[in-house]
Amino acid sequence: MTVVFRAGLLGASGYTGADLLRIGQRHPNLKFNVLTANANANQPLGVVFPHLASAGLPDLVSAETVDWSGLDVVFCGLPHGAGQPIIAEIMAGNDRVRVIDMSADFRLTDARTYERTYGQPHVATHLQGMVAYGLSEHNRAAIASARIIACPGCYPTAALMGVLPPLAAGVICTEDIIIDAKSGVTGAGRGLKQNMLMAEAGESVSPYGVGVHRHAPEIDQELSGVANADVIVGFTPHLIPMSRGELVTAHVRLVDGHTVADLRECLESVYENEPFVRVAGEGEAISTGHVRGSNHCVIGVYADRILGRAILVVVIDNLVKGSAGQAIQNFNIAFGLPETTGLEQMPLFP
Amino acid sequence: MTVVFRAGLLGASGYTGADLLRIGQRHPNLKFNVLTANANANQPLGVVFPHLASAGLPDLVSAETVDWSGLDVVFCGLPHGAGQPIIAEIMAGNDRVRVIDMSADFRLTDARTYERTYGQPHVATHLQGMVAYGLSEHNRAAIASARIIACPGCYPTAALMGVLPPLAAGVICTEDIIIDAKSGVTGAGRGLKQNMLMAEAGESVSPYGVGVHRHAPEIDQELSGVANADVIVGFTPHLIPMSRGELVTAHVRLVDGHTVADLRECLESVYENEPFVRVAGEGEAISTGHVRGSNHCVIGVYADRILGRAILVVVIDNLVKGSAGQAIQNFNIAFGLPETTGLEQMPLFP
Amino acid sequence: MTVVFRAGLLGASGYTGADLLRIGQRHPNLKFNVLTANANANQPLGVVFPHLASAGLPDLVSAETVDWSGLDVVFCGLPHGAGQPIIAEIMAGNDRVRVIDMSADFRLTDARTYERTYGQPHVATHLQGMVAYGLSEHNRAAIASARIIACPGCYPTAALMGVLPPLAAGVICTEDIIIDAKSGVTGAGRGLKQNMLMAEAGESVSPYGVGVHRHAPEIDQELSGVANADVIVGFTPHLIPMSRGELVTAHVRLVDGHTVADLRECLESVYENEPFVRVAGEGEAISTGHVRGSNHCVIGVYADRILGRAILVVVIDNLVKGSAGQAIQNFNIAFGLPETTGLEQMPLFP
Amino acid sequence: MTVVFRAGLLGASGYTGADLLRIGQRHPNLKFNVLTANANANQPLGVVFPHLASAGLPDLVSAETVDWSGLDVVFCGLPHGAGQPIIAEIMAGNDRVRVIDMSADFRLTDARTYERTYGQPHVATHLQGMVAYGLSEHNRAAIASARIIACPGCYPTAALMGVLPPLAAGVICTEDIIIDAKSGVTGAGRGLKQNMLMAEAGESVSPYGVGVHRHAPEIDQELSGVANADVIVGFTPHLIPMSRGELVTAHVRLVDGHTVADLRECLESVYENEPFVRVAGEGEAISTGHVRGSNHCVIGVYADRILGRAILVVVIDNLVKGSAGQAIQNFNIAFGLPETTGLEQMPLFP
Repeated sequence: MTVVFRAGLLGASGYTGADLLRIGQRHPNLKFNVLTANANANQPLGVVFPHLASAGLPDLVSAETVDWSGLDVVFCGLPHGAGQPIIAEIMAGNDRVRVIDMSADFRLTDARTYERTYGQPHVATHLQGMVAYGLSEHNRAAIASARIIACPGCYPTAALMGVLPPLAAGVICTEDIIIDAKSGVTGAGRGLKQNMLMAEAGESVSPYGVGVHRHAPEIDQELSGVANADVIVGFTPHLIPMSRGELVTAHVRLVDGHTVADLRECLESVYENEPFVRVAGEGEAISTGHVRGSNHCVIGVYADRILGRAILVVVIDNLVKGSAGQAIQNFNIAFGLPETTGLEQMPLFP
Repeated sequence: MTVVFRAGLLGASGYTGADLLRIGQRHPNLKFNVLTANANANQPLGVVFPHLASAGLPDLVSAETVDWSGLDVVFCGLPHGAGQPIIAEIMAGNDRVRVIDMSADFRLTDARTYERTYGQPHVATHLQGMVAYGLSEHNRAAIASARIIACPGCYPTAALMGVLPPLAAGVICTEDIIIDAKSGVTGAGRGLKQNMLMAEAGESVSPYGVGVHRHAPEIDQELSGVANADVIVGFTPHLIPMSRGELVTAHVRLVDGHTVADLRECLESVYENEPFVRVAGEGEAISTGHVRGSNHCVIGVYADRILGRAILVVVIDNLVKGSAGQAIQNFNIAFGLPETTGLEQMPLFP
Repeated sequence: MTVVFRAGLLGASGYTGADLLRIGQRHPNLKFNVLTANANANQPLGVVFPHLASAGLPDLVSAETVDWSGLDVVFCGLPHGAGQPIIAEIMAGNDRVRVIDMSADFRLTDARTYERTYGQPHVATHLQGMVAYGLSEHNRAAIASARIIACPGCYPTAALMGVLPPLAAGVICTEDIIIDAKSGVTGAGRGLKQNMLMAEAGESVSPYGVGVHRHAPEIDQELSGVANADVIVGFTPHLIPMSRGELVTAHVRLVDGHTVADLRECLESVYENEPFVRVAGEGEAISTGHVRGSNHCVIGVYADRILGRAILVVVIDNLVKGSAGQAIQNFNIAFGLPETTGLEQMPLFP
Repeated sequence: MTVVFRAGLLGASGYTGADLLRIGQRHPNLKFNVLTANANANQPLGVVFPHLASAGLPDLVSAETVDWSGLDVVFCGLPHGAGQPIIAEIMAGNDRVRVIDMSADFRLTDARTYERTYGQPHVATHLQGMVAYGLSEHNRAAIASARIIACPGCYPTAALMGVLPPLAAGVICTEDIIIDAKSGVTGAGRGLKQNMLMAEAGESVSPYGVGVHRHAPEIDQELSGVANADVIVGFTPHLIPMSRGELVTAHVRLVDGHTVADLRECLESVYENEPFVRVAGEGEAISTGHVRGSNHCVIGVYADRILGRAILVVVIDNLVKGSAGQAIQNFNIAFGLPETTGLEQMPLFP
């Protein structure tokens, strides 16, 4: 007998919402009963996402009209800030439901850091105690029992998958972690911005948010946690002319006495039995194209030309392992299902 | 109990082979025991396709070394011509095995047309009697019982899905069918050609094979079959700067007394219960991006400005419905499985 | 001594305006004294187009504040409709100035056709008598003496460059001219539309405006003029995932007694001494990439598989020969300069 | 009176050669009399580059058949190693000719470093004394009098334009210069490689040559020269899915007592009167698209989140300022022409 959990999705007209539905459609234990998209309420999903027109999913509704009481899980794909009051209401009215939040709202444990980073006060700080940070491979126990799972940002996911283990193991230094990141345009969402027009973003690469991107404090927080030190990373994201895919190049300093081989061994050992993570062999080509559309994460380890430094490269699909895929992975953990359920899709290459 | 059929794949280092493996990986009734790639024999699959490195598939072998006797089905993703002798040998030694050929080798029923089109004589004409043309929605009975299934070319698939039903129904004329086709670069395979370099194919559109493309006689053959007339189509393919996706714009003439509404009704009626085919609503945007990575086919119907003419637009993923996906669909038909098995994947958009 | 003409540009914040400035910057006889962009008035040009920040061009101003009396020529890159009252005012106050309009406002000679096509009445019909249609190679005498030059749309330019000469020469038929067109995304302008986001337009091809695109009546008008018959063309544009470039595939019917060789000869003869137009040799590859950024036009001629039909392929850069480049070419004609002045730039390939 | 210098080009079938011809075509003082391309000798240039078919340039010839004696300047766009013997021969037979080499052959002053880096001995070390390193803005005096000008690699150009001035001025440290670079695919040349196919390079970003790329020793050499210290940089290039464009993100450490404002001031002061270089204002968006096709270089200066560090971003067109454009700039310097001659082309955006 297959147990099927009843799910809702807040924000079904955005890219992360759509990718959650794409993945969820093949999940045997997940059924979406509620899809909200206030601006398109009462329209079929196919109106906002024609590629899902034949998926047999329910029509879009306004969040205000939903009875949340019968749901087992609510995913949130709203922009930051928008979900807080709704999630507070959902939690208040249903003492069993789990919320898996793909937005930034519950990632930062410190309310002041949230306010400083997102430019608005947090209005649901009373829920923070119920939250687990959803970096699946590194926080399973907490995820399994949390009422709210704050899925990491796409950049933090990629950065932490590479940097967190060797930092925790004392192989790399807490200082001087320089994260040079590259993302496809879906990372910016579906909003209408001039620099996201194909005519402007195509055939070009450009940095943005240098030194001030909102994902940096999140990376600091998680690295500081494992390092027992105040870690502040350098963080420089770049916009790449492609739809999906994210690559983080982390330029790190080895702790004295440690070598690049130690770094590799550390990562290979941590991820040895992880179904979604693979440390690339020496000399193997790494590309975001090799993980497109999948929950996979591939990590490369390289010696730097500068003595005592090393380079980590991590590739993920920003909408999958960087968002909707990891959300499903966390759902599996939270509901006691095999962790790969519904995530068996191989990458779409080419 | 799940029945699992033992499969082989000839040509696992090409794009259609890789996409067959990607799709097949989530098919509960299909297990690949043999993957051939002569130039990379004895290497792991991940060497030619890193995105499949963790799929748990067997190593590549040379076709000469394979014992075909234990297999239920052999898929062929070799270039045209290469598979004929091997398939002949396989059929000779195993009176139960089915061959599902994604190459062009058994699509043309007339050996002289094959030779004229492909510039080499056919060396396995004795097998032609066992062949069914694998346009799934339109040839199910023959596919179900055939020993060899010749999967249509990507362009013929897209063209026929739109043009065949109204031609068969007498809604459009046999004369003056003008097929203007657009394909992503994977349609040209993985061979090293200067015009396929990203620097040359990117940011450009170009026609190729105008009037002489090899898929045209195949379209003629199938349309002639349903029309009981010698149909010769105009066929002009174009290379589009994208990896996947194919769009066919068929400019057709309505039979006197018929309207665009009749054309729409004909297609809606034929495809009403087809899980993979959808006739887009009037005014609905159509895009290859809406079918990417899936076995879906979307058809648009439009009035032409020229009185008495109409326009059909068909979009597919050239590697899925146009090749590997349809191969799996035919496998399902041939082995008595539900036709959507393993093909439930929603499109990867964006 | 170099004569320098004083120029204004209406609409300097759009793509055609920007490309006019890019090209004009190397024109020895052209100096831009006035650039309007009402939404960005009083800002440096570099704010809307950083690539022109160092060009030494004047700041943006509001059209209302301009004294037009001292200008020799005014180019218009405004959206259709917006320029009519301003141009009327300019003409009223300066009996010497020439207007070179890149918008659609003066292309259609019939006011009712304009209103039907653009959904709004024409408010400057009194000027229509001063207008020459600016298809440079085919209307030089009229352009040389006109006060207003209506530069053709990008699609009409590409279509007419191929179809007009053989239609005028009686080599192809007036019926059954099917124009299947492909354009990069800049053709849609700089407005914020969801389908122009890189995430949506990238890696996809899609038709749009099938049967109802506004450029079709313009093509009809010009072809009808040379054919002395009411020509109505089929017209199906497609959006291609690239920034620039336009390819028109015209599927035409030969007049009885004429051959594809005649068609080729007709075009070669017409364009023999044209500096910007080249009829590609038989078997030569044609690509929009080969004309990118230049005022070039390349035409291919092919036999169709259907007896009595032929295929013409025309490639241009939609922003150059399809707009700003042809505007400069018309400026040269109008002001008695060598026609290639300022347009010597070779294509940017790759 | 216009003086026209007679030029030859070794290697006219590669991308750098083609771009030199594109630019040179509008240079009033430069005329190409000789174009070599051994594999395509005796064919028109249009056979290898259709976009230059109408440029009126001479046919391709084999280098062996050329009489070099009448030329004023020879540009070299051959792969490294190939040009050394030919250049030696040219220099031996013409005591006036200048060679402007876009290859890597004369960039490294130390023959052992060359051999170690390029895997082959240098066979024209006797010429090294005649060589000036052609980073135009920073080596004018030497360029003006040198017989051979070694144009920098594209990555060294971008890296040095940003890093060299503040290093020379003592604003940034010699240690810990981390250069994270991103390039379009033309940087890899026109050779047929699987990873350069559009199907593989498109929609993907990937690192390559991490820690071992051949441009790193060149950067070391030039930085060491101005710093009077052994500088070893970290260097990690990435392949971006676009044809042209290069962006270098240099993560640097400020010398104690210096601020980001000092860094900005240093660069603004050095480049104040440079026609091709612009330091972007604070908050201004930077993109390779804003320099495409031009000889421009734009530099951004940012504070790092890590105290005492800063980030420099430099964008160029890899084929122009990174190769052919800088070669023309050096030609102008060497022949006493205004430095911008022939390079006035504004960027092609979008």
